Amino acid sequence: MPTALTKESDVDVLIVGAGPAGLMCAMALARAGVNVRIIDQRPAKVAAGQADGIQPRIVEVFQSYGFADRLFKEAVQVHMAAFYNPGPNGGIERTGRAPDVTAPTARWAFEMALHQGGIEQIFLDSMASNGVEVERPMIPTAIQLSQDESVLKDPKSHPVKVVLKDLGAPEGSLDTEVVHAKFLVGCDGAHSWVRRQFGITMEGEQTDYIWGVLDLIPDTDFPDIRNRCAVHSHNGSCMIIPREGDLVRLYVQLADKDVLDAKGRVDKSRVGPETIMEVANKSLYPYKMSTSHPIDWWTLYIIGQRVANQYSVHDRVLIAGDACHTHSPKAGQGMNASMNDTHNLAWKLTHVLRGWADLSILKTYEFERRKYAQDLIMFDKKFAALFSGKPRTDDSDDGVSHEEFLEAFQTFGLFTSGIGVHYQPSAIVDDRHSSYASKLNVGQRLPPQVFIRAADSQPVQIHDLCPSDTRFKVLVFTGDTTNQLQLKNVKALAEEMQKPEHFYERFGHGNSSAVFELLAISSADKMISNYTDAPTFFRSHWSKFLLDDEDMYKRAGGGGYDAYGVDPNGAIVVVRPDGYVGTVAPLGGLEYLDNYFASFMVPSS
Amino acid sequence: MPTALTKESDVDVLIVGAGPAGLMCAMALARAGVNVRIIDQRPAKVAAGQADGIQPRIVEVFQSYGFADRLFKEAVQVHMAAFYNPGPNGGIERTGRAPDVTAPTARWAFEMALHQGGIEQIFLDSMASNGVEVERPMIPTAIQLSQDESVLKDPKSHPVKVVLKDLGAPEGSLDTEVVHAKFLVGCDGAHSWVRRQFGITMEGEQTDYIWGVLDLIPDTDFPDIRNRCAVHSHNGSCMIIPREGDLVRLYVQLADKDVLDAKGRVDKSRVGPETIMEVANKSLYPYKMSTSHPIDWWTLYIIGQRVANQYSVHDRVLIAGDACHTHSPKAGQGMNASMNDTHNLAWKLTHVLRGWADLSILKTYEFERRKYAQDLIMFDKKFAALFSGKPRTDDSDDGVSHEEFLEAFQTFGLFTSGIGVHYQPSAIVDDRHSSYASKLNVGQRLPPQVFIRAADSQPVQIHDLCPSDTRFKVLVFTGDTTNQLQLKNVKALAEEMQKPEHFYERFGHGNSSAVFELLAISSADKMISNYTDAPTFFRSHWSKFLLDDEDMYKRAGGGGYDAYGVDPNGAIVVVRPDGYVGTVAPLGGLEYLDNYFASFMVPSS
Repeated sequence: MPTALTKESDVDVLIVGAGPAGLMCAMALARAGVNVRIIDQRPAKVAAGQADGIQPRIVEVFQSYGFADRLFKEAVQVHMAAFYNPGPNGGIERTGRAPDVTAPTARWAFEMALHQGGIEQIFLDSMASNGVEVERPMIPTAIQLSQDESVLKDPKSHPVKVVLKDLGAPEGSLDTEVVHAKFLVGCDGAHSWVRRQFGITMEGEQTDYIWGVLDLIPDTDFPDIRNRCAVHSHNGSCMIIPREGDLVRLYVQLADKDVLDAKGRVDKSRVGPETIMEVANKSLYPYKMSTSHPIDWWTLYIIGQRVANQYSVHDRVLIAGDACHTHSPKAGQGMNASMNDTHNLAWKLTHVLRGWADLSILKTYEFERRKYAQDLIMFDKKFAALFSGKPRTDDSDDGVSHEEFLEAFQTFGLFTSGIGVHYQPSAIVDDRHSSYASKLNVGQRLPPQVFIRAADSQPVQIHDLCPSDTRFKVLVFTGDTTNQLQLKNVKALAEEMQKPEHFYERFGHGNSSAVFELLAISSADKMISNYTDAPTFFRSHWSKFLLDDEDMYKRAGGGGYDAYGVDPNGAIVVVRPDGYVGTVAPLGGLEYLDNYFASFMVPSS
Repeated sequence: MPTALTKESDVDVLIVGAGPAGLMCAMALARAGVNVRIIDQRPAKVAAGQADGIQPRIVEVFQSYGFADRLFKEAVQVHMAAFYNPGPNGGIERTGRAPDVTAPTARWAFEMALHQGGIEQIFLDSMASNGVEVERPMIPTAIQLSQDESVLKDPKSHPVKVVLKDLGAPEGSLDTEVVHAKFLVGCDGAHSWVRRQFGITMEGEQTDYIWGVLDLIPDTDFPDIRNRCAVHSHNGSCMIIPREGDLVRLYVQLADKDVLDAKGRVDKSRVGPETIMEVANKSLYPYKMSTSHPIDWWTLYIIGQRVANQYSVHDRVLIAGDACHTHSPKAGQGMNASMNDTHNLAWKLTHVLRGWADLSILKTYEFERRKYAQDLIMFDKKFAALFSGKPRTDDSDDGVSHEEFLEAFQTFGLFTSGIGVHYQPSAIVDDRHSSYASKLNVGQRLPPQVFIRAADSQPVQIHDLCPSDTRFKVLVFTGDTTNQLQLKNVKALAEEMQKPEHFYERFGHGNSSAVFELLAISSADKMISNYTDAPTFFRSHWSKFLLDDEDMYKRAGGGGYDAYGVDPNGAIVVVRPDGYVGTVAPLGGLEYLDNYFASFMVPSS
């Protein structure tokens, strides 16, 4: 038997775990042309069940990567929520209906749902088009991070040494490999091996709520079966979430005695899908639900709400997704938060690896995403308690009333939709001049807005002009360019911006248009504006000069300056590569922008 | 050398010619599962140039077949038109801007453009998914139509005998085939071989206007280069139409002496793209246009405006597209009219071949499409004359004024957009009860309208629920189903409609849902409506019961009863498989509908 030599290799980023967080990370890095590998211990992707709704912000993020259309083809949309409470006749009755999400500025103001395998396939297809595949089944067996400060501070070093074992390797063949990575991202789930290797602890507790979940195609007379329903009854709580095709997901609360073994652990052998159906039917009385189809998927869980005490080890080993936060699935946040973690991380890694950004930018990953997870868990606890609590009735005054529940549902809706996520000031979020675009929240995602192209009056959604392509978007709101005085200012700005001392050239690394996307937006009237009047610097292509005006049939566009609160004399808005407003400056505020970028970017050499 | 035997075969439909008319026909029949073959004399599809804009109605038609998304990805959109006339300083000046199309009810109220090869590829891809390919290069060499009345009247007969020659067959191999077809559709262009075999003549004349056309990527200071422009100058007329990417199409009027040979025929050797550019630059003065890219495509033509005196021979041989009408390309009508011809024809052939409709339904093809071509040519003449006429100036009072041209542009806009096409009363268009949906025009295409699904409040575009799937769409406007009295009427209707003597069963051929798509639309308020209240007949699936209400964020939907002028007590609207309103009836008007369908459909045996 021949002795296998040890295989060794280098990689820029190694991702451990190919769930939603890992796949989002691998997809985004692969698109950016980063040298990346991703491994997973499972021999194949998830087939059915698992994961929850797709929140409005994630649909926007998917769109920014160019594949929201897949969701519109494959996922179900959930527009309405219905609330049921105990009625006078012993059964439940509907106490109200409301929008399923509270997200008035969302580009798509509804929730979607698609089974996790479907979501993973979208990522896998995109990765394949960039030549990246998940290596599976493969696990890391040892990991070591250099302790040498000078190595850790050199962005070109490979300080992470990982031993990988190929579980699919034929007997007797070489099945281990030593990989030297510049960065390692642990997306390996709630029981994260990566997290445990570095002794990162999870903070928070497990609750006492035990839930049964199942997917079914229902036969029922329940009139809200295609809406998201929160049902409080004297016989327990139950949640209904519509899924793809005719499927529906049921969440029912189970009694401890039904599911726990002698040691207080969930024992799946003690209950079955029939139990869950039986409990659901009790909650839903006087309505009835049955199914004539096989049950696709079901499970039991205890809600655990925990956040890792750190997300990063020396900014070289980072964890994301369930590896650093776990939630109540009913809030529909786990998968969304996980994908948003690595959406936040991927462009920062890319900028560091290209030599554009300083390593320190990676500190903002933990700063921004850990805060979000903590807020999320605070909400999650409140929501889970309200949901699992007894309903208020004439007999029980201390229960949860419909009004109380609805208020919580809506107050937190903006947050859970992902739309309201607000990153606090840091090197990459600077709000000191926010008054120049007073209705934009620096640190929040740029709200959608339709403008028209000056050259051809075609309406365009600003989100579609700000894709996740790793570039900073510099939106120059020029004011009214048919006003000759204003046009003179704009021409002066164009001239100044091209000078080597200012950010566009200074941090452009010899190819400014690869680092920055420059769009100009005039408040001129389309009927008299000539796009040829704008300085050529602001129309490197004719499609890049926009107007804040309605399209020819007044069906879209207009009111963008007002919606963003942009000063009529203009402003410059910097949108981060992940779609969040990084900073706002007055039209003449080039020096301020120079300083903003200097705080985290590396000047061209 | 072996003597080849004659190959003989049967086919339901043989299409000659794979341009836009032939491909639309083949695609639609292939989707419907019809036994169809299509041949073309060219060895490969068109690569560049040719064909004109894609009008709003054709975008709707593409959507009805499920591939408008291809247009949105690949085609350019044209939203604005600009008009130029002689100015005071010897050059041209802009006299106005307007929407490029006059089509307020269009689902997409703009023009698109995509090179003919791109359009053909969309059809070819769809056909391939149904296993149909163009056989090429192949030509018909002889054709014979049975004169036997009993054969012609038997829808199962194969009265058309065609000899085909495979031009790509290897030397010495069998290259001819005798095909017996139930129907033959000649889509073989302006010089149609099929048309000539049956002595069908073209009526109309050739004009004296000679035009040069070229596609280029322009370098120019002309501010409307990305808009459609009609330029009248003292140095000739010129039209600009934006195309895909950075391409622009130029149409310029040429002087007879420059392009005609001694016999008065267009001589392409006498001019080149440089001549066209030179003439364009004279018209556009003081603006300049040049190009630093090779010229992709250019041509010369004389406008001919003619219509065939018949479209059909015994309803067995039919002609479509350029084979029966030719136009001025500047009106952007040729390709659109051609595709609409076979969109009109394909479902009728399908219904006859399935034994659902009487052969006589095919008479409506010529009735509807020849009238349209005649109207089109009447418009075309006026428009071409206005366009080629001298501009009016202070010195020349008899020229065409801006106002005159703009008025013609807009008056005819609704017609040229394809949206205003209005088929006159016939067996399949019956408007006697149109007052029950007073704002619908029976014989016009159903206007787009967003409703919401009662079960889940998801907004849906009624156009997307009325795809080109060969089914008649029966839209039952139920009135307010939360009104118990009205609900009683609706339940009674549901019960009655299922009886064998009424059209749904009588013409259902044992599978009514394959012949008819049944959708119910209630005017109930979504906040109190329960979809489970509707009779199950009107919700064979939960998605088929709709409400005329806004979505949860009031972004879409609502006002459909008003927009269609539907009686608050309800109405039934029948939409033909091609999207045109066939008839309207009162909610209780089953007998009237029975008679409507009886006038062209064959009862179930």
